[in-house]
Amino acid sequence: MCEVNKENFGILYQDIKQSIKNAKFVSIDLEFSALYPLKSHMPSLFDEASERYLKIRRNLEHVIPVQVGLTTFSFNPDSGSYLGTVYNFFIIPASFPTLQNVFCFQSETLEFLRFHGFDFNRLIYKGIPYMNTTQENELRKKLQNNEISEVMSNFKSELQNVFEEECEAINKWYGNAKEGDYISLDKIHDKYKSNIDIIYFLHKGFRAKFKNTWTRANNYEFILKKVSSEELKLLKKEKNLEEELLDELLGSQKYSGY
Amino acid sequence: MCEVNKENFGILYQDIKQSIKNAKFVSIDLEFSALYPLKSHMPSLFDEASERYLKIRRNLEHVIPVQVGLTTFSFNPDSGSYLGTVYNFFIIPASFPTLQNVFCFQSETLEFLRFHGFDFNRLIYKGIPYMNTTQENELRKKLQNNEISEVMSNFKSELQNVFEEECEAINKWYGNAKEGDYISLDKIHDKYKSNIDIIYFLHKGFRAKFKNTWTRANNYEFILKKVSSEELKLLKKEKNLEEELLDELLGSQKYSGY
Repeated sequence: MCEVNKENFGILYQDIKQSIKNAKFVSIDLEFSALYPLKSHMPSLFDEASERYLKIRRNLEHVIPVQVGLTTFSFNPDSGSYLGTVYNFFIIPASFPTLQNVFCFQSETLEFLRFHGFDFNRLIYKGIPYMNTTQENELRKKLQNNEISEVMSNFKSELQNVFEEECEAINKWYGNAKEGDYISLDKIHDKYKSNIDIIYFLHKGFRAKFKNTWTRANNYEFILKKVSSEELKLLKKEKNLEEELLDELLGSQKYSGY
Repeated sequence: MCEVNKENFGILYQDIKQSIKNAKFVSIDLEFSALYPLKSHMPSLFDEASERYLKIRRNLEHVIPVQVGLTTFSFNPDSGSYLGTVYNFFIIPASFPTLQNVFCFQSETLEFLRFHGFDFNRLIYKGIPYMNTTQENELRKKLQNNEISEVMSNFKSELQNVFEEECEAINKWYGNAKEGDYISLDKIHDKYKSNIDIIYFLHKGFRAKFKNTWTRANNYEFILKKVSSEELKLLKKEKNLEEELLDELLGSQKYSGY
C-alpha cells in the first residue's frame, strides 16, 4: 500500500497515471466524514430508487471524503494472475479566503474511523488540497480582478506582523544590493511554508513594495532577489503568481516555486 | 499547562474542582470546529445586537468546541501576586446508537488549528466524551425501555463476530466452572476496550446468555465470572449497567468497571 499525500503527490503522479493506464480494471473506495448528516433526508426502507438517490445526493453535499483508495489491477499473462497496486490518498478541501468550505462530521463516523486507527493528523496536516471546477473558476476570476486582499485572510494580524518585520530587514539590505543579489527570508520559510494563504500574500506584498525585485519560494527557502527591469518583465510573463497559487490549492506539485 | 483527556480526567477531577474553589477568578477560552458555517446567517456590520446574537446562536448549533481552556487564578497575599493554573480539555461528542451528533468543520478553522499545531488525533482518540442534558435524559429513557439493541450499532457485524467467537470459548469453560471461577476475555479487552458501544452490548449479551454470570471490565481486563443466584441479585441491585454506560458517555471516570 502506498500513501499519497501533498508531499509526495507530485513525485508519484506519473507512476499512478501509468499504473491506471496499464490496469485491466481499477477499484475505488472512499472513507467519508459522515453518511447521513441531514435528519430531514434519512433513508427509509420504502424509498423508491429515485428518492433514495436524491437523499444520498443531498446528504453528500455536506460530506467530504477523507481518504480515497485506488487499486489498479494489471494482468500478468505469463503467470495468469492479477497484480493489485493500492494507493491511499489523503485529501482535504483547500483553504483560502472566499472559498468557504464547510462540511459535516458525524460522531459515528469518527468512532468508525478511530476504531480502524485512522490518522486524523495526517489528513489535516498532509492531505492533498482540492477545489471543484466551479470554485477554481470563481477564484481565478476574483484573483484576476484583484478582489481578494490580505485583509480577508484568516491570518491577517500574523501577516501584518511578519510583513512589517521582514520589510525592515529587506529595507536595510536593499540600498546596497546589486542586481542579481538576493536575501533569504528564513523566518518566513521556517514558520509559514505550509500556509498557502500567508505565502501568497507575502509574495504579492514584497513584489509590490520593492521595485525591481522578484520573490521565489520552494521547499527549502523563501528568497527575494534584485533583478533588472528586463528580467522582471520576462519573469512576469513567464510565471503567473495567481496560476501558481491555483495549482497549489489544487494539490498540484508541478511548480518548483514561484 | 495540564492537558485533560478521557484518560486522566477522573484522576484530575478533584484537583480541578479544588483549583476553581480556591480561585479569585477564572478565565475560559474555547477552540471551535467552525465559526460561521451557515451562509444564511453570516454576520453583518449592520446587525443590531439581538440579530447578531441570534446569528451566532444559530451557527453555534452546528459547531462543537474541540478544546476548552480553563485558567484559575489564585491570590497569594504574602507575595501579593496571582498564580494562574491552566487546564486544557480535549472534548468530543459521545458516540452511541440514537445519539446522532452531527457537527460542522470549516476549512479556515482547520487551517487555523493546523497553523497552531493542534493535535487532531488527541482530540478524537483521547477527547472526553459528553452529551447535553436532553440527550442524556432521552438516552436514559430509551435504555430503560430497552429500545436500543445491538442491531443499531455502527459495529453490528464486528459485534456479532466477536460475540459468537467468545461464546464458543465461554461455553467450553462454563460446564466445569464453579461459582467464583472467572474467565478473562483478553481479545475483547485488547481490541475493543475503548469502544463504549461494543463493550456495552457484550456485557449485555453475555449476561443474558449465560445463567448466573456477571461481567466486569476495567482498564486491565474484561472478565466473566460464575456467581451464585444470591450474589447475582445483589450485583444487579448494586450496579446498573445502563447508569454506568451513561457515566462513561459523559466522560465520568468514577466507576472502576461494571
